[in-house]
Amino acid sequence: MIEELLRVPPGPVDLTAVPTGDTPGFEGSKAEGKQALADLGPDLADLQERLFAERSRDDVPARSVLLVLQGMDTSGKGGVLRHTVGLVDPQGVRITSFKAPTPEELRHDFLWRIRKALPGPGQIGVFDRSHYEDVLIGRVRALADEAELERRYDAINRFEAELVASGTTVVKCLLHISADTQKERLLARLDDPTKHWKYNPGDVDERQRWPAYREAYELAVERTNAEAAPWFVVPSDRKWYRNLAVGMLLRDTLARMAPTWPPADFDVDHERGRLTGEVPIS
Amino acid sequence: MIEELLRVPPGPVDLTAVPTGDTPGFEGSKAEGKQALADLGPDLADLQERLFAERSRDDVPARSVLLVLQGMDTSGKGGVLRHTVGLVDPQGVRITSFKAPTPEELRHDFLWRIRKALPGPGQIGVFDRSHYEDVLIGRVRALADEAELERRYDAINRFEAELVASGTTVVKCLLHISADTQKERLLARLDDPTKHWKYNPGDVDERQRWPAYREAYELAVERTNAEAAPWFVVPSDRKWYRNLAVGMLLRDTLARMAPTWPPADFDVDHERGRLTGEVPIS
Repeated sequence: MIEELLRVPPGPVDLTAVPTGDTPGFEGSKAEGKQALADLGPDLADLQERLFAERSRDDVPARSVLLVLQGMDTSGKGGVLRHTVGLVDPQGVRITSFKAPTPEELRHDFLWRIRKALPGPGQIGVFDRSHYEDVLIGRVRALADEAELERRYDAINRFEAELVASGTTVVKCLLHISADTQKERLLARLDDPTKHWKYNPGDVDERQRWPAYREAYELAVERTNAEAAPWFVVPSDRKWYRNLAVGMLLRDTLARMAPTWPPADFDVDHERGRLTGEVPIS
Repeated sequence: MIEELLRVPPGPVDLTAVPTGDTPGFEGSKAEGKQALADLGPDLADLQERLFAERSRDDVPARSVLLVLQGMDTSGKGGVLRHTVGLVDPQGVRITSFKAPTPEELRHDFLWRIRKALPGPGQIGVFDRSHYEDVLIGRVRALADEAELERRYDAINRFEAELVASGTTVVKCLLHISADTQKERLLARLDDPTKHWKYNPGDVDERQRWPAYREAYELAVERTNAEAAPWFVVPSDRKWYRNLAVGMLLRDTLARMAPTWPPADFDVDHERGRLTGEVPIS
């Protein structure tokens, strides 16, 4: 039901109408929210291990999950990785952080580097930024013209439909903060010398384009909000709620996939005998 | 000091002389050992974040860590990944599990796939099995002749020396269990249907070659036990100790590297002014 609360309905998107500080689907305090996230841990770990185990089955195709995290600077993509994704076995997770494209990446289609970073069978892939940057900064900074942006929306929809058809469940989260929250967080980085390495003066310049980014997000979400690869807007002014909400979305996604433990493809009693010496090994 | 206790001294190696069930460097109970590992978490996370942050410095070369995990089936490589490596931010970790080489990998030198999996700047790379398989199963199953094995030991030494010279600290752990412990763990897998997917009847066949594997490990460790890329033998019959010991080794390794927070490369007060509006943004 967290899914229903955060799911973006089809049609035009107005992010100014979505509160950034609410906690949909959770009534408790911050301390209770942190505890609720910790309590999700065993469930998430169990479901992830089942998904991972499932790839050893010959009778069903392997599946995977792709969690896309998007949001303005300081919206907490890194925090979700640390606190939520960090709850599951790192062997089963593939995280990719997308930065400005390299010269080599720029010589290819924008989806080239994305395809190389997809989760393998049984994995949970997490994108910290993604192919959506190419229709966000691409639009705001006019790195692509309108026709190219249109082509990219279509390409993204085809790409994600293809992913879903091949067994990858796609969950897209927009971590939604207010401009004031971003200002507070940037100031907090300046106040803490252990955070200076995360601060980039260019982020302040980007802040001036806040309305343009919001509009680019609204268009991107509207154009790529497929039933099979849905967008969720996660109110993210409260870090604890953001981490919990993404955890609940991930848990519900995995639970719906319902991965099951593969059955033995050997004779259990016979193997027991081989180990205890009651049956010859070979 | 855990390093001194577990470090393999130079010269011939006799694994039968190393107890598998001891807990060198830790006096406490199992419960206390688990708590000690949890208590390592914040230290490990802090050191890892500093290492990760350091790559943004222009004035010092980026560094990384490579943790190599080797051991017989059921020795607990996966457990270390889950319980110990899982304590740090997954963004800073690159885990690679090496399986039997693919046909493509077999067409290349044995280090080809290894080089592709090395940690990036600021990362902690973890190998679940590694290039050592090529001198372990390679020897036991006679997949390579003596001359080729000799060439591989030398190639490994050169490769690891090159890694160290380029800023990667290499830590190699042999998770050391007894044959009886392996039998118990394989039987436990048979008793638990949620573990059947981890059970492979071929593992019982491999068990018959236990002395040959031990000898192959002894030779491999002796021939590649470089001062700059040392081997540690971790008694691993007790899972909690194994997880804790690798955690302590990783913590001490990072602490010796002493990564420091990058200083600001901007004027902090000026940036504060730009954010609060007291100074023009551009």
